Amino acid sequence: MIFTQKLECAWSSSGSLLTVGLDPDTKRFPAELQGRPDAIFEFCRSIVDVTAPYACAVKPQIAYFSAHRAEDQLEELCAYILAHHPDLPVILDAKRGDIGSTAEQYAREAFERYQADAVTVNPYMGFDSLQPYLEWKSKGVIVLCRTSNAGGSDLQFLEDAEGTPLYLKVASLVAERWNTNGQCGLVVGATFPDEIAKVRARVGSMPLLIPGIGAQGGDISATVRAGRDAGGNGMMINSSRAILYAGSGDDWREAAALAARATRDAINAERGG
Amino acid sequence: MIFTQKLECAWSSSGSLLTVGLDPDTKRFPAELQGRPDAIFEFCRSIVDVTAPYACAVKPQIAYFSAHRAEDQLEELCAYILAHHPDLPVILDAKRGDIGSTAEQYAREAFERYQADAVTVNPYMGFDSLQPYLEWKSKGVIVLCRTSNAGGSDLQFLEDAEGTPLYLKVASLVAERWNTNGQCGLVVGATFPDEIAKVRARVGSMPLLIPGIGAQGGDISATVRAGRDAGGNGMMINSSRAILYAGSGDDWREAAALAARATRDAINAERGG
Repeated sequence: MIFTQKLECAWSSSGSLLTVGLDPDTKRFPAELQGRPDAIFEFCRSIVDVTAPYACAVKPQIAYFSAHRAEDQLEELCAYILAHHPDLPVILDAKRGDIGSTAEQYAREAFERYQADAVTVNPYMGFDSLQPYLEWKSKGVIVLCRTSNAGGSDLQFLEDAEGTPLYLKVASLVAERWNTNGQCGLVVGATFPDEIAKVRARVGSMPLLIPGIGAQGGDISATVRAGRDAGGNGMMINSSRAILYAGSGDDWREAAALAARATRDAINAERGG
Repeated sequence: MIFTQKLECAWSSSGSLLTVGLDPDTKRFPAELQGRPDAIFEFCRSIVDVTAPYACAVKPQIAYFSAHRAEDQLEELCAYILAHHPDLPVILDAKRGDIGSTAEQYAREAFERYQADAVTVNPYMGFDSLQPYLEWKSKGVIVLCRTSNAGGSDLQFLEDAEGTPLYLKVASLVAERWNTNGQCGLVVGATFPDEIAKVRARVGSMPLLIPGIGAQGGDISATVRAGRDAGGNGMMINSSRAILYAGSGDDWREAAALAARATRDAINAERGG
Protein backbone atom coordinates (compact mmCIF):
# COMPACT_ATOMS: atom_id res chain seq x y z
CA MET A 1 0.00 0.00 0.00
CA ILE A 2 1.33 3.46 -0.79
CA PHE A 3 1.91 5.95 1.99
CA THR A 4 -0.99 8.29 1.29
CA GLN A 5 -3.43 5.36 1.23
CA LYS A 6 -1.99 3.96 4.45
CA LEU A 7 -2.38 7.38 6.04
CA GLU A 8 -5.98 7.74 4.85
CA CYS A 9 -6.80 4.32 6.26
CA ALA A 10 -5.18 5.29 9.56
CA TRP A 11 -7.18 8.54 9.73
CA SER A 12 -10.32 6.56 9.12
CA SER A 13 -9.70 3.60 11.44
CA SER A 14 -8.25 5.60 14.34
CA GLY A 15 -10.54 8.59 14.02
CA SER A 16 -7.47 10.62 14.95
CA LEU A 17 -5.20 13.21 13.36
CA LEU A 18 -2.63 12.93 16.14
CA THR A 19 0.95 11.94 15.30
CA VAL A 20 3.06 10.84 18.24
CA GLY A 21 6.60 12.15 17.93
CA LEU A 22 9.25 9.84 19.34
CA ASP A 23 12.05 12.09 20.64
CA PRO A 24 13.54 9.77 23.27
CA ASP A 25 15.54 11.92 25.70
CA THR A 26 17.25 9.40 27.99
CA LYS A 27 17.61 11.94 30.80
CA ARG A 28 13.81 12.11 31.08
CA PHE A 29 13.21 8.37 31.08
CA PRO A 30 11.39 6.78 34.04
CA ALA A 31 13.50 5.21 36.77
CA GLU A 32 12.69 1.65 35.72
CA LEU A 33 14.43 2.18 32.37
CA GLN A 34 17.50 4.06 33.56
CA GLY A 35 20.70 2.17 32.82
CA ARG A 36 19.11 -0.46 30.62
CA PRO A 37 21.03 -0.97 27.36
CA ASP A 38 17.76 -1.24 25.44
CA ALA A 39 16.13 1.70 27.26
CA ILE A 40 15.49 3.75 24.11
CA PHE A 41 13.78 0.87 22.34
CA GLU A 42 11.77 -0.10 25.40
CA PHE A 43 10.64 3.46 26.07
CA CYS A 44 9.54 4.06 22.49
CA ARG A 45 7.95 0.62 22.14
CA SER A 46 5.86 1.20 25.26
CA ILE A 47 4.83 4.66 24.11
CA VAL A 48 3.76 3.31 20.73
CA ASP A 49 1.80 0.45 22.30
CA VAL A 50 -0.18 2.69 24.64
CA THR A 51 -0.72 5.63 22.28
CA ALA A 52 -1.40 3.76 19.02
CA PRO A 53 -5.19 3.65 19.63
CA TYR A 54 -5.22 7.46 19.61
CA ALA A 55 -2.84 8.14 16.74
CA CYS A 56 -2.81 8.16 12.93
CA ALA A 57 1.01 7.95 12.73
CA VAL A 58 4.22 7.90 14.73
CA LYS A 59 7.29 9.98 14.00
CA PRO A 60 10.66 8.83 15.34
CA GLN A 61 13.25 11.63 15.33
CA ILE A 62 16.48 9.99 14.21
CA ALA A 63 18.84 12.47 15.94
CA TYR A 64 17.82 11.14 19.37
CA PHE A 65 18.95 7.69 18.31
CA SER A 66 22.10 8.75 16.45
CA ALA A 67 23.43 10.83 19.34
CA HIS A 68 23.32 7.70 21.52
CA ARG A 69 24.75 5.13 19.06
CA ALA A 70 21.24 3.61 19.06
CA GLU A 71 20.55 3.06 15.36
CA ASP A 72 20.06 -0.63 16.16
CA GLN A 73 17.28 0.28 18.59
CA LEU A 74 15.64 2.45 15.93
CA GLU A 75 15.77 -0.47 13.49
CA GLU A 76 14.27 -2.73 16.11
CA LEU A 77 11.57 -0.18 16.90
CA CYS A 78 10.55 0.25 13.28
CA ALA A 79 10.44 -3.53 12.79
CA TYR A 80 8.37 -3.85 15.98
CA ILE A 81 5.84 -1.27 14.79
CA LEU A 82 5.56 -2.96 11.41
CA ALA A 83 4.93 -6.33 13.09
CA HIS A 84 2.61 -5.23 15.89
CA HIS A 85 0.96 -2.09 14.48
CA PRO A 86 1.10 -2.78 10.73
CA ASP A 87 -1.52 -0.15 9.91
CA LEU A 88 0.28 2.66 11.75
CA PRO A 89 2.40 4.76 9.37
CA VAL A 90 5.97 5.46 10.49
CA ILE A 91 7.39 8.83 9.47
CA LEU A 92 11.15 8.99 9.89
CA ASP A 93 11.95 12.56 10.89
CA ALA A 94 15.40 13.06 9.40
CA LYS A 95 15.08 16.32 7.40
CA ARG A 96 17.72 15.13 4.95
CA GLY A 97 18.81 17.17 1.95
CA ASP A 98 21.77 16.45 -0.33
CA ILE A 99 22.84 15.92 -3.96
CA GLY A 100 21.35 12.97 -5.84
CA SER A 101 24.07 10.37 -5.30
CA THR A 102 24.04 11.05 -1.56
CA ALA A 103 20.24 11.29 -1.39
CA GLU A 104 20.11 7.76 -2.84
CA GLN A 105 22.00 6.60 0.23
CA TYR A 106 19.72 8.51 2.60
CA ALA A 107 16.66 7.04 0.86
CA ARG A 108 18.05 3.56 1.39
CA GLU A 109 18.65 4.42 5.02
CA ALA A 110 15.06 5.55 5.54
CA PHE A 111 13.13 3.09 3.41
CA GLU A 112 15.27 -0.05 3.37
CA ARG A 113 17.16 -0.03 6.64
CA TYR A 114 14.40 1.49 8.79
CA GLN A 115 11.45 0.45 6.59
CA ALA A 116 9.82 3.84 7.21
CA ASP A 117 6.61 4.71 5.34
CA ALA A 118 7.69 8.31 4.85
CA VAL A 119 10.65 10.60 5.53
CA THR A 120 10.98 14.33 6.11
CA VAL A 121 13.31 16.21 3.74
CA ASN A 122 14.69 19.72 3.32
CA PRO A 123 13.95 21.63 0.07
CA TYR A 124 16.97 23.97 0.08
CA MET A 125 18.89 21.96 -2.53
CA GLY A 126 15.94 21.71 -4.94
CA PHE A 127 14.10 19.08 -6.90
CA ASP A 128 16.97 16.79 -7.87
CA SER A 129 17.84 16.40 -4.19
CA LEU A 130 14.32 14.96 -3.66
CA GLN A 131 14.14 12.72 -6.73
CA PRO A 132 15.90 9.69 -5.21
CA TYR A 133 13.24 9.55 -2.48
CA LEU A 134 10.42 9.94 -4.99
CA GLU A 135 11.69 6.92 -6.89
CA TRP A 136 10.44 4.82 -3.99
CA LYS A 137 6.90 5.08 -5.33
CA SER A 138 5.13 3.62 -2.32
CA LYS A 139 6.82 5.96 0.13
CA GLY A 140 5.90 9.40 1.42
CA VAL A 141 8.20 12.41 1.07
CA ILE A 142 7.34 15.23 3.45
CA VAL A 143 9.05 18.50 2.58
CA LEU A 144 9.89 21.25 5.08
CA CYS A 145 7.83 24.32 4.25
CA ARG A 146 7.11 26.56 7.26
CA THR A 147 8.82 25.34 10.41
CA SER A 148 7.57 25.91 13.94
CA ASN A 149 10.75 27.37 15.43
CA ALA A 150 11.40 31.09 15.92
CA GLY A 151 14.30 31.11 13.44
CA GLY A 152 12.04 29.62 10.77
CA SER A 153 11.23 33.17 9.73
CA ASP A 154 14.87 34.00 8.96
CA LEU A 155 14.72 32.47 5.48
CA GLN A 156 11.17 31.19 5.05
CA PHE A 157 9.72 34.70 5.27
CA LEU A 158 11.98 36.26 2.66
CA GLU A 159 9.74 37.70 -0.04
CA ASP A 160 10.18 37.90 -3.78
CA ALA A 161 9.34 40.93 -5.92
CA GLU A 162 5.63 40.00 -5.82
CA GLY A 163 5.64 39.71 -2.02
CA THR A 164 5.43 35.92 -1.95
CA PRO A 165 7.41 34.49 0.95
CA LEU A 166 9.79 31.57 0.42
CA TYR A 167 7.64 29.06 2.33
CA LEU A 168 4.72 29.65 -0.05
CA LYS A 169 7.06 29.31 -3.02
CA VAL A 170 8.05 25.92 -1.59
CA ALA A 171 4.41 24.95 -1.12
CA SER A 172 3.64 25.84 -4.73
CA LEU A 173 6.73 24.11 -6.12
CA VAL A 174 5.87 20.90 -4.30
CA ALA A 175 2.16 21.00 -5.17
CA GLU A 176 2.54 22.03 -8.80
CA ARG A 177 5.86 20.55 -9.94
CA TRP A 178 7.65 18.22 -7.55
CA ASN A 179 4.77 15.99 -6.45
CA THR A 180 4.71 14.03 -9.68
CA ASN A 181 3.47 10.80 -8.13
CA GLY A 182 1.18 12.00 -5.32
CA GLN A 183 3.74 11.06 -2.66
CA CYS A 184 4.45 14.43 -1.11
CA GLY A 185 3.41 16.15 2.06
CA LEU A 186 4.54 19.40 3.71
CA VAL A 187 5.76 20.34 7.17
CA VAL A 188 3.93 23.43 8.43
CA GLY A 189 4.31 24.50 12.05
CA ALA A 190 1.31 24.89 14.36
CA THR A 191 2.81 28.04 15.81
CA PHE A 192 1.53 29.92 12.73
CA PRO A 193 -2.11 29.00 11.97
CA ASP A 194 -2.55 31.83 9.46
CA GLU A 195 0.30 30.41 7.46
CA ILE A 196 -1.13 26.89 7.64
CA ALA A 197 -4.28 28.30 6.03
CA LYS A 198 -2.26 29.96 3.27
CA VAL A 199 -0.44 26.71 2.56
CA ARG A 200 -3.67 24.71 2.59
CA ALA A 201 -5.18 27.12 0.07
CA ARG A 202 -2.31 26.37 -2.34
CA VAL A 203 -1.93 22.61 -2.01
CA GLY A 204 -5.43 21.10 -2.20
CA SER A 205 -5.71 17.96 -0.09
CA MET A 206 -1.98 17.34 0.31
CA PRO A 207 -1.19 15.93 3.78
CA LEU A 208 0.36 18.41 6.20
CA LEU A 209 2.65 17.32 9.00
CA ILE A 210 2.11 19.89 11.71
CA PRO A 211 4.55 20.04 14.62
CA GLY A 212 4.41 22.66 17.31
CA ILE A 213 1.44 21.85 19.52
CA GLY A 214 2.17 20.66 23.04
CA ALA A 215 5.60 21.71 24.33
CA GLN A 216 6.05 24.23 21.51
CA GLY A 217 2.78 25.99 22.39
CA GLY A 218 0.77 25.94 19.15
CA ASP A 219 -3.00 26.46 19.40
CA ILE A 220 -4.88 23.24 18.59
CA SER A 221 -8.20 24.82 17.64
CA ALA A 222 -6.68 27.38 15.34
CA THR A 223 -4.45 24.72 13.80
CA VAL A 224 -7.33 22.40 12.99
CA ARG A 225 -9.48 25.17 11.53
CA ALA A 226 -6.61 26.33 9.35
CA GLY A 227 -5.26 22.99 8.23
CA ARG A 228 -8.15 20.58 7.67
CA ASP A 229 -8.85 19.52 4.12
CA ALA A 230 -12.32 19.40 2.56
CA GLY A 231 -12.98 16.03 4.23
CA GLY A 232 -11.91 17.20 7.69
CA ASN A 233 -8.63 15.26 7.50
CA GLY A 234 -5.40 16.20 5.73
CA MET A 235 -3.27 16.63 8.85
CA MET A 236 -0.75 14.75 10.93
CA ILE A 237 -0.69 16.94 14.04
CA ASN A 238 2.43 16.08 15.97
CA SER A 239 3.00 16.15 19.70
CA SER A 240 6.22 14.74 21.14
CA ARG A 241 7.39 15.85 24.57
CA ALA A 242 3.93 16.65 25.99
CA ILE A 243 2.97 13.00 25.47
CA LEU A 244 6.29 11.21 26.04
CA TYR A 245 6.98 12.87 29.36
CA ALA A 246 3.42 13.40 30.60
CA GLY A 247 4.30 11.26 33.61
CA SER A 248 7.65 10.51 35.21
CA GLY A 249 6.62 8.05 37.92
CA ASP A 250 5.50 4.44 37.66
CA ASP A 251 2.41 5.61 35.79
CA TRP A 252 4.35 6.99 32.80
CA ARG A 253 2.66 4.67 30.32
CA GLU A 254 -0.83 5.57 31.52
CA ALA A 255 0.05 9.26 31.62
CA ALA A 256 1.27 9.12 28.00
CA ALA A 257 -1.90 7.31 26.91
CA LEU A 258 -4.09 9.87 28.67
CA ALA A 259 -2.16 12.76 27.15
CA ALA A 260 -2.47 11.23 23.67
CA ARG A 261 -6.18 10.62 24.13
CA ALA A 262 -6.75 14.15 25.42
CA THR A 263 -4.84 15.60 22.48
CA ARG A 264 -6.79 13.51 20.00
CA ASP A 265 -10.01 14.66 21.65
CA ALA A 266 -8.99 18.31 21.62
CA ILE A 267 -8.23 18.00 17.91
CA ASN A 268 -11.50 16.23 17.21
CA ALA A 269 -13.55 18.74 19.20
CA GLU A 270 -12.60 21.40 16.69
CA ARG A 271 -12.79 19.09 13.73
CA GLY A 272 -16.28 17.91 14.51
CA GLY A 273 -14.99 14.32 14.18
CA MET B 1 42.68 24.26 18.88
CA ILE B 2 39.62 25.75 17.25
CA PHE B 3 38.55 24.62 13.80
CA THR B 4 39.55 27.71 11.84
CA GLN B 5 43.04 27.66 13.38
CA LYS B 6 43.41 23.96 12.65
CA LEU B 7 42.36 24.62 9.07
CA GLU B 8 44.82 27.50 8.67
CA CYS B 9 47.63 25.31 10.01
CA ALA B 10 46.61 22.56 7.58
CA TRP B 11 46.62 25.00 4.64
CA SER B 12 50.07 26.14 5.68
CA SER B 13 51.68 22.78 6.44
CA SER B 14 50.19 20.87 3.48
CA GLY B 15 50.43 23.68 0.96
CA SER B 16 47.12 22.38 -0.33
CA LEU B 17 43.53 23.55 -0.58
CA LEU B 18 42.26 20.09 -1.54
CA THR B 19 39.65 18.38 0.63
CA VAL B 20 39.23 14.67 0.04
CA GLY B 21 35.56 13.68 0.20
CA LEU B 22 34.96 10.22 1.61
CA ASP B 23 31.83 8.88 -0.16
CA PRO B 24 32.49 5.13 0.17
CA ASP B 25 30.35 3.37 -2.44
CA THR B 26 30.85 -0.32 -1.69
CA LYS B 27 29.96 -1.34 -5.24
CA ARG B 28 33.04 0.51 -6.48
CA PHE B 29 35.48 -0.93 -3.96
CA PRO B 30 38.52 -2.86 -5.22
CA ALA B 31 38.29 -6.64 -5.31
CA GLU B 32 40.53 -7.13 -2.30
CA LEU B 33 37.99 -5.40 -0.06
CA GLN B 34 34.81 -6.97 -1.42
CA GLY B 35 32.98 -8.96 1.22
CA ARG B 36 35.09 -7.77 4.15
CA PRO B 37 32.93 -6.68 7.09
CA ASP B 38 35.27 -3.74 7.72
CA ALA B 39 35.55 -2.82 4.03
CA ILE B 40 34.22 0.72 4.44
CA PHE B 41 36.65 1.53 7.22
CA GLU B 42 39.59 -0.08 5.42
CA PHE B 43 38.82 1.68 2.16
CA CYS B 44 38.51 5.11 3.77
CA ARG B 45 41.49 4.58 6.07
CA SER B 46 43.69 3.68 3.09
CA ILE B 47 42.46 6.66 1.11
CA VAL B 48 43.18 9.00 4.01
CA ASP B 49 46.66 7.56 4.54
CA VAL B 50 47.70 7.95 0.90
CA THR B 51 46.03 11.31 0.19
CA ALA B 52 46.72 13.12 3.48
CA PRO B 53 50.03 14.58 2.20
CA TYR B 54 48.10 16.39 -0.52
CA ALA B 55 45.05 17.54 1.46
CA CYS B 56 44.06 20.26 3.92
CA ALA B 57 41.00 18.33 5.17
CA VAL B 58 38.91 15.20 4.71
CA LYS B 59 35.14 15.13 4.49
CA PRO B 60 33.30 11.89 5.28
CA GLN B 61 29.74 11.87 3.94
CA ILE B 62 27.66 10.24 6.64
CA ALA B 63 24.90 8.91 4.33
CA TYR B 64 27.28 6.36 2.82
CA PHE B 65 27.88 4.93 6.26
CA SER B 66 24.27 5.13 7.50
CA ALA B 67 22.84 3.33 4.47
CA HIS B 68 25.11 0.37 5.27
CA ARG B 69 24.67 0.20 9.07
CA ALA B 70 28.29 1.30 9.27
CA GLU B 71 28.20 4.05 11.90
CA ASP B 72 30.71 2.01 13.90
CA GLN B 73 33.13 2.16 10.96
CA LEU B 74 32.69 5.92 10.72
CA GLU B 75 33.47 6.23 14.43
CA GLU B 76 36.54 4.07 13.98
CA LEU B 77 37.62 6.09 10.94
CA CYS B 78 37.30 9.42 12.75
CA ALA B 79 39.22 8.04 15.73
CA TYR B 80 41.90 6.69 13.38
CA ILE B 81 42.33 10.05 11.67
CA LEU B 82 42.56 11.83 15.00
CA ALA B 83 45.24 9.36 16.16
CA HIS B 84 47.30 9.08 12.97
CA HIS B 85 46.67 12.40 11.24
CA PRO B 86 45.96 14.69 14.19
CA ASP B 87 46.55 17.87 12.18
CA LEU B 88 44.09 16.94 9.41
CA PRO B 89 40.66 18.54 9.99
CA VAL B 90 37.67 16.21 9.67
CA ILE B 91 34.51 17.79 8.27
CA LEU B 92 31.45 15.61 8.82
CA ASP B 93 29.21 16.15 5.81
CA ALA B 94 25.74 15.67 7.29
CA LYS B 95 23.81 18.79 6.19
CA ARG B 96 21.66 18.64 9.28
CA GLY B 97 18.93 21.17 10.05
CA ASP B 98 16.31 20.95 12.78
CA ILE B 99 14.81 22.76 15.79
CA GLY B 100 17.06 23.50 18.75
CA SER B 101 16.31 20.49 20.94
CA THR B 102 16.95 18.14 18.03
CA ALA B 103 19.96 20.09 16.79
CA GLU B 104 21.53 19.55 20.23
CA GLN B 105 21.37 15.82 19.53
CA TYR B 106 22.84 16.20 16.05
CA ALA B 107 25.66 18.35 17.48
CA ARG B 108 26.46 15.61 19.99
CA GLU B 109 26.43 13.09 17.15
CA ALA B 110 28.92 15.11 15.09
CA PHE B 111 31.23 16.48 17.76
CA GLU B 112 31.09 13.94 20.58
CA ARG B 113 30.37 10.62 18.91
CA TYR B 114 32.38 11.22 15.73
CA GLN B 115 34.78 13.85 17.17
CA ALA B 116 34.52 15.82 13.93
CA ASP B 117 36.21 19.21 13.71
CA ALA B 118 33.34 20.68 11.70
CA VAL B 119 29.92 19.75 10.38
CA THR B 120 27.87 20.91 7.40
CA VAL B 121 24.39 22.28 8.18
CA ASN B 122 21.34 23.50 6.27
CA PRO B 123 20.15 27.10 6.83
CA TYR B 124 16.47 26.64 5.91
CA MET B 125 15.27 26.58 9.52
CA GLY B 126 17.21 29.70 10.52
CA PHE B 127 19.57 30.85 13.22
CA ASP B 128 18.15 28.98 16.21
CA SER B 129 18.58 25.72 14.32
CA LEU B 130 22.33 26.48 14.13
CA GLN B 131 22.85 27.73 17.67
CA PRO B 132 23.37 24.31 19.30
CA TYR B 133 26.31 23.66 16.96
CA LEU B 134 27.77 27.11 17.61
CA GLU B 135 27.82 26.40 21.33
CA TRP B 136 30.65 23.98 20.64
CA LYS B 137 33.08 26.90 20.44
CA SER B 138 36.06 24.97 19.09
CA LYS B 139 34.08 23.42 16.23
CA GLY B 140 33.37 24.59 12.71
CA VAL B 141 29.84 25.06 11.35
CA ILE B 142 29.72 25.11 7.56
CA VAL B 143 26.41 26.38 6.21
CA LEU B 144 24.94 25.44 2.82
CA CYS B 145 24.82 28.55 0.66
CA ARG B 146 25.02 27.80 -3.10
CA THR B 147 25.04 24.09 -3.83
CA SER B 148 26.66 22.46 -6.85
CA ASN B 149 23.67 20.42 -8.08
CA ALA B 150 21.35 21.50 -10.89
CA GLY B 151 18.34 21.78 -8.53
CA GLY B 152 20.29 24.15 -6.32
CA SER B 153 18.84 26.99 -8.41
CA ASP B 154 15.23 26.05 -7.58
CA LEU B 155 15.27 27.91 -4.27
CA GLN B 156 18.73 29.45 -3.97
CA PHE B 157 18.17 31.67 -7.00
CA LEU B 158 14.84 33.11 -5.85
CA GLU B 159 15.25 36.86 -5.68
CA ASP B 160 13.85 39.42 -3.28
CA ALA B 161 12.41 42.80 -4.30
CA GLU B 162 15.97 44.21 -4.63
CA GLY B 163 17.03 41.36 -6.88
CA THR B 164 19.21 39.64 -4.27
CA PRO B 165 19.05 35.86 -4.61
CA LEU B 166 18.50 33.64 -1.58
CA TYR B 167 22.03 32.23 -1.55
CA LEU B 168 23.52 35.72 -1.18
CA LYS B 169 21.02 36.46 1.60
CA VAL B 170 22.31 33.35 3.35
CA ALA B 171 25.92 34.45 2.81
CA SER B 172 25.18 37.85 4.32
CA LEU B 173 23.18 36.43 7.24
CA VAL B 174 26.02 34.07 8.14
CA ALA B 175 28.77 36.66 7.71
CA GLU B 176 27.01 39.56 9.42
CA ARG B 177 24.78 37.98 12.06
CA TRP B 178 25.12 34.25 12.64
CA ASN B 179 28.91 33.89 12.80
CA THR B 180 29.15 35.35 16.29
CA ASN B 181 32.22 33.35 17.28
CA GLY B 182 34.17 33.08 14.02
CA GLN B 183 33.26 29.40 13.61
CA CYS B 184 31.34 29.51 10.36
CA GLY B 185 32.10 28.58 6.80
CA LEU B 186 29.92 28.33 3.70
CA VAL B 187 29.31 25.64 1.08
CA VAL B 188 29.52 27.13 -2.41
CA GLY B 189 29.57 24.85 -5.44
CA ALA B 190 32.42 24.93 -7.96
CA THR B 191 29.92 24.59 -10.79
CA PHE B 192 29.21 28.32 -10.46
CA PRO B 193 32.48 30.33 -10.23
CA ASP B 194 30.75 33.68 -10.74
CA GLU B 195 28.64 32.98 -7.69
CA ILE B 196 31.67 31.94 -5.66
CA ALA B 197 33.11 35.38 -6.42
CA LYS B 198 29.91 37.11 -5.30
CA VAL B 199 29.91 35.15 -2.06
CA ARG B 200 33.60 35.86 -1.45
CA ALA B 201 32.94 39.57 -1.92
CA ARG B 202 30.38 39.45 0.90
CA VAL B 203 32.09 37.28 3.49
CA GLY B 204 35.68 38.50 3.81
CA SER B 205 38.07 35.68 4.62
CA MET B 206 35.45 33.18 5.75
CA PRO B 207 36.42 29.61 4.69
CA LEU B 208 34.47 28.25 1.74
CA LEU B 209 33.87 24.53 1.28
CA ILE B 210 33.68 24.07 -2.48
CA PRO B 211 32.33 20.79 -3.85
CA GLY B 212 31.76 20.17 -7.52
CA ILE B 213 35.18 19.73 -9.11
CA GLY B 214 36.07 16.25 -10.35
CA ALA B 215 33.05 14.06 -11.08
CA GLN B 216 30.69 17.04 -10.94
CA GLY B 217 32.66 18.91 -13.60
CA GLY B 218 33.51 22.25 -11.97
CA ASP B 219 36.41 24.27 -13.46
CA ILE B 220 39.39 24.31 -11.08
CA SER B 221 41.05 27.45 -12.44
CA ALA B 222 37.89 29.52 -12.40
CA THR B 223 37.07 28.23 -8.92
CA VAL B 224 40.42 29.21 -7.48
CA ARG B 225 40.37 32.67 -9.04
CA ALA B 226 36.86 33.28 -7.74
CA GLY B 227 37.20 31.82 -4.28
CA ARG B 228 40.67 32.60 -2.91
CA ASP B 229 40.90 35.01 -0.02
CA ALA B 230 43.40 37.87 0.21
CA GLY B 231 46.10 35.44 1.37
CA GLY B 232 45.47 32.96 -1.45
CA ASN B 233 43.77 30.48 0.89
CA GLY B 234 40.18 30.51 2.18
CA MET B 235 39.02 27.39 0.38
CA MET B 236 38.47 23.70 1.01
CA ILE B 237 38.08 22.47 -2.57
CA ASN B 238 36.46 19.08 -2.40
CA SER B 239 36.90 16.13 -4.73
CA SER B 240 35.38 12.77 -3.84
CA ARG B 241 34.70 10.24 -6.57
CA ALA B 242 37.48 11.38 -8.95
CA ILE B 243 40.02 10.55 -6.23
CA LEU B 244 38.38 7.58 -4.48
CA TYR B 245 37.79 5.62 -7.65
CA ALA B 246 40.76 6.83 -9.72
CA GLY B 247 41.88 3.21 -9.94
CA SER B 248 39.95 -0.01 -9.58
CA GLY B 249 42.73 -2.58 -9.83
CA ASP B 250 45.46 -3.50 -7.36
CA ASP B 251 46.90 -0.01 -7.75
CA TRP B 252 43.86 1.77 -6.33
CA ARG B 253 45.81 3.35 -3.49
CA GLU B 254 48.51 4.71 -5.79
CA ALA B 255 45.90 5.92 -8.27
CA ALA B 256 44.06 7.80 -5.52
CA ALA B 257 47.30 9.37 -4.31
CA LEU B 258 48.23 10.43 -7.83
CA ALA B 259 44.77 11.89 -8.43
CA ALA B 260 44.93 13.81 -5.17
CA ARG B 261 48.40 15.13 -5.95
CA ALA B 262 47.37 16.14 -9.46
CA THR B 263 44.30 17.94 -8.13
CA ARG B 264 46.36 19.74 -5.51
CA ASP B 265 48.82 20.78 -8.20
CA ALA B 266 46.07 21.96 -10.55
CA ILE B 267 44.69 24.10 -7.73
CA ASN B 268 48.11 25.47 -6.82
CA ALA B 269 49.00 26.29 -10.43
CA GLU B 270 46.20 28.83 -10.46
CA ARG B 271 46.80 29.97 -6.93
CA GLY B 272 50.46 30.67 -7.45
CA GLY B 273 51.17 28.60 -4.32
